[in-house]
Amino acid sequence: MVILIGEVIIEFLANLENHLKEMRKSLDVNDIKELIESINNSESIFIMGAGRSGFVAKSFAMRLMHLGYSVYVVGETVTPKIKKQDLLIAISGSGETTSVLNIAMKAKSMVGSKIAVLTSNRNSNLAKLADVVVVLKGKIKTEKDERLSKLAPLGTMFELTSMIFLDALIAELLSLKGLDEENLRERHAILE
Amino acid sequence: MVILIGEVIIEFLANLENHLKEMRKSLDVNDIKELIESINNSESIFIMGAGRSGFVAKSFAMRLMHLGYSVYVVGETVTPKIKKQDLLIAISGSGETTSVLNIAMKAKSMVGSKIAVLTSNRNSNLAKLADVVVVLKGKIKTEKDERLSKLAPLGTMFELTSMIFLDALIAELLSLKGLDEENLRERHAILE
Amino acid sequence: MVILIGEVIIEFLANLENHLKEMRKSLDVNDIKELIESINNSESIFIMGAGRSGFVAKSFAMRLMHLGYSVYVVGETVTPKIKKQDLLIAISGSGETTSVLNIAMKAKSMVGSKIAVLTSNRNSNLAKLADVVVVLKGKIKTEKDERLSKLAPLGTMFELTSMIFLDALIAELLSLKGLDEENLRERHAILE
Amino acid sequence: MVILIGEVIIEFLANLENHLKEMRKSLDVNDIKELIESINNSESIFIMGAGRSGFVAKSFAMRLMHLGYSVYVVGETVTPKIKKQDLLIAISGSGETTSVLNIAMKAKSMVGSKIAVLTSNRNSNLAKLADVVVVLKGKIKTEKDERLSKLAPLGTMFELTSMIFLDALIAELLSLKGLDEENLRERHAILE
Repeated sequence: MVILIGEVIIEFLANLENHLKEMRKSLDVNDIKELIESINNSESIFIMGAGRSGFVAKSFAMRLMHLGYSVYVVGETVTPKIKKQDLLIAISGSGETTSVLNIAMKAKSMVGSKIAVLTSNRNSNLAKLADVVVVLKGKIKTEKDERLSKLAPLGTMFELTSMIFLDALIAELLSLKGLDEENLRERHAILE
Repeated sequence: MVILIGEVIIEFLANLENHLKEMRKSLDVNDIKELIESINNSESIFIMGAGRSGFVAKSFAMRLMHLGYSVYVVGETVTPKIKKQDLLIAISGSGETTSVLNIAMKAKSMVGSKIAVLTSNRNSNLAKLADVVVVLKGKIKTEKDERLSKLAPLGTMFELTSMIFLDALIAELLSLKGLDEENLRERHAILE
Repeated sequence: MVILIGEVIIEFLANLENHLKEMRKSLDVNDIKELIESINNSESIFIMGAGRSGFVAKSFAMRLMHLGYSVYVVGETVTPKIKKQDLLIAISGSGETTSVLNIAMKAKSMVGSKIAVLTSNRNSNLAKLADVVVVLKGKIKTEKDERLSKLAPLGTMFELTSMIFLDALIAELLSLKGLDEENLRERHAILE
Repeated sequence: MVILIGEVIIEFLANLENHLKEMRKSLDVNDIKELIESINNSESIFIMGAGRSGFVAKSFAMRLMHLGYSVYVVGETVTPKIKKQDLLIAISGSGETTSVLNIAMKAKSMVGSKIAVLTSNRNSNLAKLADVVVVLKGKIKTEKDERLSKLAPLGTMFELTSMIFLDALIAELLSLKGLDEENLRERHAILE
């Protein structure tokens, strides 16, 4: 058997294009509206995710900071106590990641903060707990599908689509606020 | 003027789909082959990026670990001294990020490690320094284009396409090694 | 009232010197011996702590890496699944930090890894769970003592004494292994 | 030869006690006063260090946040662009750590921010660049001393004394501001 280098990469990309097309059609505008309102009406925004979803969370947090929001990543050094008037955004494909779920429950029960969840699983415990839920269809960690599990193993599809969706959301927020790239650049760290 | 919530998100997604289609056609198989060979022939792999490219770097590093590679993120706690037989992969859209460039020069001059670069800019100092260069077309931070700069400000397009490309590369490596999702799961952290 | 700048700093230092003298006399050699044996007999060592104890954990992990151990920080990018033959070292003054306790329970119940705990509180849930417990006397977060709470608020005293103790332990391990500073330097990251 | 477990630990602690006594006598009150004024007169405080000094930097940053300062860690997710009216505190034993020095030069030349340095080496390039220098005597990485290099290898002594000094400084700031432990607890993260 001849293996052609790059073939799987091409298949992966074609697959993702289809996935994005599906996602574009299936997005629930009401959920997105609610998420945007929560973001704009909160005093500070706290963001979290575990593993690769955690890196997506941090990428989103950085852009929110560039947009001028008061934003913190759960677990980073300068993150203060969350308050009732703050929003906690949790990113979890399965909606069952133990540490993320525990922290969301703590924010809900101890402080009464608003919780928004980005997940693939509307029936998850995290989604049930949340005030705002945005569902991104995507193979989640516990689902099975032979070919897809080789192209996009574990949470890959959710991680990619949540990264993409959140960057699209940043574009929407930028537009709503009437800002442009220069406004972001003004806040972009230069010491790195 | 009526602003319809979600309109910019839809425009963003359509735009990205086109971008991915372009990328799929323009990928240079020889560059990818060289990158794969460097990854497979190195003793350890060191990965780095600044800002949001740094989160892409970490997402890729985590999957390489799941695949069984000996991999480190530059700047993390348990990362040891790099050696001559190791590979340093740098991710930088502009190819000019100061800290990333300085570290690559250090690895080259002090140790003689192999350097691979993922960038939008083949003429950058980082690309000139590298042994292997994979170019991902993408608006880079210093380019201008009015509409795109509002949809995908700063390095957004490069960050997304590099995240996508590297997950596609993981699929390719998985296939080359004849592994499947279960093999990844065996190494996936459970303490998080 | 005249406030002399530096007076509190001097009082803090004198106080810490006394604390260290106490600690030096009260260390339990058997506990330390057990901890050293656990470290030396494990395949890999996983280290964790929350907040400032987390930074102490990382400082210790970095030195263990310099000493040549296979070591990981819970929550960092390249940290794999923990195994039965691995050691998990948890650092928590109160011994009740939720996330740290949850993770220790997970490692115990799901994998059966050995658990070592550095804490101020031998009666804590974390200590009860652990195979090896090293107790460092230190004001813990929930104790009260008016003057000390102003000099060393919250977990300060535990965080400092655990950082100091673990650096002393590194010296002990260095001596036991017959290594010297040069051996550490060989593994010390140069890319930072 | 019989090796008694714990002997080196005891020697380490006795050694550190002496070191702290020396430090207590040799602190320069004017330098400390200048550092305190810089901290209190800046809009935001940016903190950085590499390797283990980086963990010391983060421990200090976290306490400054608890005290109510606007503080950021260079390289973390939500850290914005530094401004002229901000203070950059760099922690480096040798005062020559490449990345730290490069970033300090950038902050100085591009923005004109105030720079404070905590170092063992008053003649270092970092100290020369700085507006405020606090010197902590401590074996630095490039010095040699046979016994001490086995007890406190590489930067250990500086890292410990800077951690201790900065916690003492926190006590001083707490006293100057007339705050107590409860005020810190109010800002201490509960989601961790």
